Amino acid sequence: MTDDATPAPARRSVDLGHAEALALLGSVSLGRVVFTRQALPTVRPVNHVLVDGDLVIRTHERAALTLRAGQGEGDGVVVAYEADDIDPVTHLGWSVVVTGYARLVTDPGERARYDALLRPWVDRTMEHAIRIHPTLVTGVRLVAA
Amino acid sequence: MTDDATPAPARRSVDLGHAEALALLGSVSLGRVVFTRQALPTVRPVNHVLVDGDLVIRTHERAALTLRAGQGEGDGVVVAYEADDIDPVTHLGWSVVVTGYARLVTDPGERARYDALLRPWVDRTMEHAIRIHPTLVTGVRLVAA
Repeated sequence: MTDDATPAPARRSVDLGHAEALALLGSVSLGRVVFTRQALPTVRPVNHVLVDGDLVIRTHERAALTLRAGQGEGDGVVVAYEADDIDPVTHLGWSVVVTGYARLVTDPGERARYDALLRPWVDRTMEHAIRIHPTLVTGVRLVAA
Repeated sequence: MTDDATPAPARRSVDLGHAEALALLGSVSLGRVVFTRQALPTVRPVNHVLVDGDLVIRTHERAALTLRAGQGEGDGVVVAYEADDIDPVTHLGWSVVVTGYARLVTDPGERARYDALLRPWVDRTMEHAIRIHPTLVTGVRLVAA
């Protein structure tokens, strides 16, 4: 804790616009999907890719997120997705949060396309692709004041 | 996407025990708090410190999490907290998720103690400390197969 006890450099938070936030999200491949499981908030790290303005993630068949998305009718379920790149020492960087409906990808051609773009976290078979259409995109950049 | 299209090294996921997961969480200072705002899942990066087995984060007074925690009576509200250290190229590393009740710290002495340990993200006044007692601690280590 010695490092944290020293005076931190002055920082301020700058809100990002929609386009810049999505561009930053697309510049990295790792993030965290946030959803509700048995009425409790939960979060899981996954990798992602941006496809035509939508976010596509890959997750295991038995994962709660997939089950929920598969169970949803019509609009699917609402999830949040966060990615960031924040320096652990200076705490400078950025964070982007996307909120939107998650849908299970069922079309074989669409699924094959995402399989070529996305690497799964671990070697498991029977994974599913989830496509998230951003309805809300927010982000902040943490800069030196 | 060229990098992601190349064959990924074989990886597997190993579940972490409670103690090891908490130790990893305590080895980093950044994470993401996950909560529900207006019935929607949301997530915000913050910094944290482990104090006597509890997780303490600092957040702004007007933040939705603080308001929810402050409004809660008795047990507070349930949140999830995630921290990870995952290599963006190899996807090896670890992720830990804590679920528990969030409580606003109101005792001045306790608050002063956390102020000395935690650095806020940005230079804002009137922040609050939130203490989360872990009721569920899970984690995975992503290792080469």
